[in-house]
Amino acid sequence: MSSFDHRKYRPFAPIRKPDRRWPDQIIDRAPRWCSVDLRDGNQALIEPMNVVQKRRMFELLVKLGFKEIEVGFPAASQPDFDFVRSLITDNLIPEDVTIQVLTQARDELIARTFESLRGARRAIVHLYNSTSTVQREQVFGLDREGIKAIAVKGAHSVARLAAQNPETEWAFQYSPESFTGTELDYAVEVCDAVTAVWQPTPENKVIINLPATVEMSTPNVFADQVEWVCDHIARRDSLIISLHTHNDRGCGVAAAELGVMAGADRIEGTLLGNGERTGNMDIVTMALNLYSQGVDPQLNLANMDEIVECVKACTQLPVHPRHPYAGELVFTAFSGSHQDAIRKCLARRQSDAPWEVAYLPIDPEDLGRDYQAVIRINSQSGKGGVAYVLEREYGIQMPRWMQIEFSARVQQATEATATELNGEQIWQIFNDSYLRPVDSGARILGYQLSRDNGQDSLNARIHWHGETRSLAGTGTGVVGAFVDALNREMRESVVLVEYSEHALGASHGEGAEAISFVQMGLNGSRYSGVAVSEDIVTASLNAILEALTRGGCEAKVAAA
Amino acid sequence: MSSFDHRKYRPFAPIRKPDRRWPDQIIDRAPRWCSVDLRDGNQALIEPMNVVQKRRMFELLVKLGFKEIEVGFPAASQPDFDFVRSLITDNLIPEDVTIQVLTQARDELIARTFESLRGARRAIVHLYNSTSTVQREQVFGLDREGIKAIAVKGAHSVARLAAQNPETEWAFQYSPESFTGTELDYAVEVCDAVTAVWQPTPENKVIINLPATVEMSTPNVFADQVEWVCDHIARRDSLIISLHTHNDRGCGVAAAELGVMAGADRIEGTLLGNGERTGNMDIVTMALNLYSQGVDPQLNLANMDEIVECVKACTQLPVHPRHPYAGELVFTAFSGSHQDAIRKCLARRQSDAPWEVAYLPIDPEDLGRDYQAVIRINSQSGKGGVAYVLEREYGIQMPRWMQIEFSARVQQATEATATELNGEQIWQIFNDSYLRPVDSGARILGYQLSRDNGQDSLNARIHWHGETRSLAGTGTGVVGAFVDALNREMRESVVLVEYSEHALGASHGEGAEAISFVQMGLNGSRYSGVAVSEDIVTASLNAILEALTRGGCEAKVAAA
Repeated sequence: MSSFDHRKYRPFAPIRKPDRRWPDQIIDRAPRWCSVDLRDGNQALIEPMNVVQKRRMFELLVKLGFKEIEVGFPAASQPDFDFVRSLITDNLIPEDVTIQVLTQARDELIARTFESLRGARRAIVHLYNSTSTVQREQVFGLDREGIKAIAVKGAHSVARLAAQNPETEWAFQYSPESFTGTELDYAVEVCDAVTAVWQPTPENKVIINLPATVEMSTPNVFADQVEWVCDHIARRDSLIISLHTHNDRGCGVAAAELGVMAGADRIEGTLLGNGERTGNMDIVTMALNLYSQGVDPQLNLANMDEIVECVKACTQLPVHPRHPYAGELVFTAFSGSHQDAIRKCLARRQSDAPWEVAYLPIDPEDLGRDYQAVIRINSQSGKGGVAYVLEREYGIQMPRWMQIEFSARVQQATEATATELNGEQIWQIFNDSYLRPVDSGARILGYQLSRDNGQDSLNARIHWHGETRSLAGTGTGVVGAFVDALNREMRESVVLVEYSEHALGASHGEGAEAISFVQMGLNGSRYSGVAVSEDIVTASLNAILEALTRGGCEAKVAAA
Repeated sequence: MSSFDHRKYRPFAPIRKPDRRWPDQIIDRAPRWCSVDLRDGNQALIEPMNVVQKRRMFELLVKLGFKEIEVGFPAASQPDFDFVRSLITDNLIPEDVTIQVLTQARDELIARTFESLRGARRAIVHLYNSTSTVQREQVFGLDREGIKAIAVKGAHSVARLAAQNPETEWAFQYSPESFTGTELDYAVEVCDAVTAVWQPTPENKVIINLPATVEMSTPNVFADQVEWVCDHIARRDSLIISLHTHNDRGCGVAAAELGVMAGADRIEGTLLGNGERTGNMDIVTMALNLYSQGVDPQLNLANMDEIVECVKACTQLPVHPRHPYAGELVFTAFSGSHQDAIRKCLARRQSDAPWEVAYLPIDPEDLGRDYQAVIRINSQSGKGGVAYVLEREYGIQMPRWMQIEFSARVQQATEATATELNGEQIWQIFNDSYLRPVDSGARILGYQLSRDNGQDSLNARIHWHGETRSLAGTGTGVVGAFVDALNREMRESVVLVEYSEHALGASHGEGAEAISFVQMGLNGSRYSGVAVSEDIVTASLNAILEALTRGGCEAKVAAA
């Protein structure tokens, strides 16, 4: 019944490469990065980003240090067109940042693309058409000459419209889309025909972008393809060779890295790898791979919490707990022998020596994270740990990120008493740690909440360490609005990293019906807060205030 | 304030390899696979698998076709010890499957390891010790000779205990742990010293496993390391070279693939890449990469839903929507040009021709999945699509997987009417599609539920297409117990793929308080069901029955 049969697939033909040089190369500087979060990333979302989300993403990309940002496909999408216009008319593009827009090689789309860019200081027009055998034969029904003619005609149109709009400084980019499925000599032939129109110079280069639209081979074969193109393409000294890999075989990062070794100058990708199907190349991973080798990544990725939070909010997609550098479990150690080795390395470490710690490829603190040794209590009983006991005996469903933090507190208590703990003792530690906080000087006194057009507005009164303060903010949901209000009120920028809540049974104290768990990012560190209340809103806001109190957060000015 | 500074890291030293041959190799047959889900995977979980979960995972691994399965670290963990014993004493290991257990090279642990294996027909004893510079200098405080002596002493103990227990057919494996941080000549020296003790022959080989305990370089450098070892190690024809890669740089699959090209015979990894930190190598991805090239993967991965469901249930970790081959979004197309190309390729496709479809590297049907063209309604309004309208106007939070399916139904209606749909029309389609089903011949009549020791037992009476039937089952939670009951009742095996529910406001009909969404796997296809009820249990069970009805599920025998 199943159609599982490998015989319906053909192997990818290898590249003959007697002069292969890339395996001896080392990447000693970062490529030029181009973010395609707002184009390839956005187009692959079930709910594409709204304007608020797009601006948030754009601001983050600028803040991280991206100098080239593909912001949309304006001729194919009215929201993209409007967003490009708003970036230009609202003057949101910094001096040193260039926006890029994608267009198919069709005259009416190219005209519309230039319309979207009117008034831009500088812009990259990214022209593409599909060149692979499958696309030529099955989709377009055209031969090599026919497909090449589409590219050349598009290149002429782009050049003409650029000349007609001299107030903008133009740069051109061409992609033979589905490059990995295109014969190499033909891909070069089409690119050469396009650059024959554009006539780039070493001072005024054109970007030739080679997309692994679908990842079709092991990454070394992709590197062979890139090296072959670099060797055979015309006007090489007047080109910037760019790569745009996807992750269909789980090797999108590897393909980009090997492709840079093979001669590419520039990399397109997205934050944490959002994009069509399995996603685009993850620029965060590739940049931190370089960083871990002592290479300046030319991006500031110090605040990983902020990146993760923004990507989750804008894409509505999760970040996997094991995502390299970003996942919640990647700086944890579970095994006793790993923990022991890490402890010894950290103890011997001198702060100015090169990083060399077993099982930790980079220092988690560089990304605003902590190394976490996860201790399992009662693990020898085979019945699981602390979280299991709290849920079974007390109905508390502790989120995973909190289990890690809490297990360390339980471990301390275990070491102090030198015995195993029972459920009541574990509950007591939880209660003492979170529900009966050291400093209960902050709590919510009252609030008004209103919702209009998907936007929540919150006015709240809080008790804040001896003072009563009034806050106002807007956002999606009451928690989002409260975080916005706090960002206006507090000296430090505060980020909601984790949030979880659930209803409780009646056994946790009079009137307690809901429990909230939050983790806040503050000054590059994370602080947790937990609160229970008969009201889910109060529980959530108190948990946030508790976390900020732990983090030593300070109000901007004295209350009136 | 931030410590983000690349200068604290040193580059990985490249391997001098003038005789490099691996980039010209092609993988034309699958390596030997060894699953380490129950050891490396399990040890990296916050809540390690319980016995029920371990057995479920073991059974799945056997069913998929794994012939070597590392089942634990019995000397370090009592639950692992007990599990190994139960596999042997309950006779759960098929004839053609060999279990493998890990042990450090310490006499008391080796003795305990052999104790766990008493009575096994055949077993691989996997000996390891750490050999990297960091581990030698900072963790063990021993020089090269001292570390090598540990390995040799361990090898002698393993050989002696094997000789004392001749009723078992023994195989030996040695890992220089942290191989990627070990000088190559020293790694080979230690392996040679171990095999000098074990004296393997071409008929009776020893496994030498090279772990990228931490991924420390680009994957081509790892391949260089593997090729170097294969060229320099003694007794190569009497060895099986095995690789065990991790994913710290996001290149665990690439490293394993390039490592096989470099001469490795065997691959250790886990299903969907669970494991320490960023995870182990994902065997599902690597096997399907081979499959997509026409190579028999030697594993049957046709029922991807079953694999995903088992991994999620046993690890308590999510599978990312963009996970290669397995994620819910990887066979979707959002862009109109992608959809158009796929449609044309599928229309022209002849069933016996090699697979060649733009944007779909393999046929989703091979894995029991469907290609999904995701249509966005009203996307030009910039306010999002169908899900947004249903949530804003009707309070229905449709889960992501269902949005994809539902958008296709809305698209059909849009094409029929050739206009944009308003919120009420979209709601009507939802209602007609799911809540007022074509065949409402199945529903729950009553049930008793009891919970003991974390296990739920359910007795249910259902109306099933004209008959009243009684079902009984057990599982975790009422839904799990009901699925178990259905598996006893129905001809086909049924799998719960997706499940989601939430409370509703009062506007959806009298007494309706909860809505449940389920997706069931049946005969390699997926069927959705939705139900509302004043009772969350009834809503959930009716949604399951509705999905099975859509799938044409049949009861085993006539009711009494």
